[in-house]
Amino acid sequence: MAPQGQPASVPDDGLTTRERRDRPLLIVHTGDGKGKSTAAFGLALRAWSQGWPVGVFQFVKSAKWRIGEERALGVLADSGEGGHVDWHKMGSGWSWVQGRVDPDGDPAAAAEGWAQIRRDLAAETYRLYVLDEMTYPLRWGWLDVAEVVDTLRTRPGRQHVVVTGRAAPQELLDAADLVTEMTKIRHPMDAGQKGQRGIEW
Amino acid sequence: MAPQGQPASVPDDGLTTRERRDRPLLIVHTGDGKGKSTAAFGLALRAWSQGWPVGVFQFVKSAKWRIGEERALGVLADSGEGGHVDWHKMGSGWSWVQGRVDPDGDPAAAAEGWAQIRRDLAAETYRLYVLDEMTYPLRWGWLDVAEVVDTLRTRPGRQHVVVTGRAAPQELLDAADLVTEMTKIRHPMDAGQKGQRGIEW
Repeated sequence: MAPQGQPASVPDDGLTTRERRDRPLLIVHTGDGKGKSTAAFGLALRAWSQGWPVGVFQFVKSAKWRIGEERALGVLADSGEGGHVDWHKMGSGWSWVQGRVDPDGDPAAAAEGWAQIRRDLAAETYRLYVLDEMTYPLRWGWLDVAEVVDTLRTRPGRQHVVVTGRAAPQELLDAADLVTEMTKIRHPMDAGQKGQRGIEW
Repeated sequence: MAPQGQPASVPDDGLTTRERRDRPLLIVHTGDGKGKSTAAFGLALRAWSQGWPVGVFQFVKSAKWRIGEERALGVLADSGEGGHVDWHKMGSGWSWVQGRVDPDGDPAAAAEGWAQIRRDLAAETYRLYVLDEMTYPLRWGWLDVAEVVDTLRTRPGRQHVVVTGRAAPQELLDAADLVTEMTKIRHPMDAGQKGQRGIEW
């Protein structure tokens, strides 16, 4: 967590401390709680501030979701400070039906979206990739888990990747360097409260 | 989680759906995992996009931490779009010593910082308050938990508050509308990797 933190152990991997410190990370934010995507966009602020090119790949279809984040990152990208930010909409997504997540999109569009990510990873287009809600097309079989994990694991250069969404596949968790589970302890919907602007979007 | 989500139950509290939906929230991000503060700053993006005044109250002392977020919110605040953002440094904080969080600051400064938050809450200065890492001065007894919780619980108007940090006091959790625990599943420091720029700050 901290710049001054001491690692629990020092591996015998032939890397210098600096090489090990700057190793590109595969990060997963999963679990049923809130904050998975919001924390990923918080990371995008840090990357922008470092002057890094940032690619956001949005696997959520709703017109309302992510509008605040998209607008903010757009203003930051156009500010003449920090890094460039590209925002990609992948043409697939999900919606809530009777309290459950249901597919709401086009498997072919999701596959084309992933192909774009793969091309950008190969070209080292970005330093940070936000693969927002990508666990759902993985879960639904719209994307091949083994192929996605292999591509992420073998990506070249120094590209950080953060994948968000519930129920991340175990293969993805196994490949990740950093996994945080957001656990719902209490949620206003439990008390009959619906989502509201400024908080949910 | 979702605009279209159905609440699990509808309470008999005399509020309309809209009144209940727009009820101001006390949010806590706690747990040992990453993403507590980054998710709070992600919420700040949404609030900014709504045109809301946002107050960040930073209880972390390190010069390095939060520089990306502070810079990004500063650019957004000066953009002429969205809401105003004030960034307050509370003059108290913590550091990591031998892998443990240790107090590193001035209890009196923390108390003065909290007094400022209390004044702003009374004046309804902001629509969103990010009380970043405020659990630590609460844990150390630098702030009175009962007084803080009572002030937050009885705040006037429609002010959302998000408190971040490990080991949130139970009284705060009990008063919160929304609690997410960030749980560490895997962290690079476990593999001997130190924090790196663009990811940790």
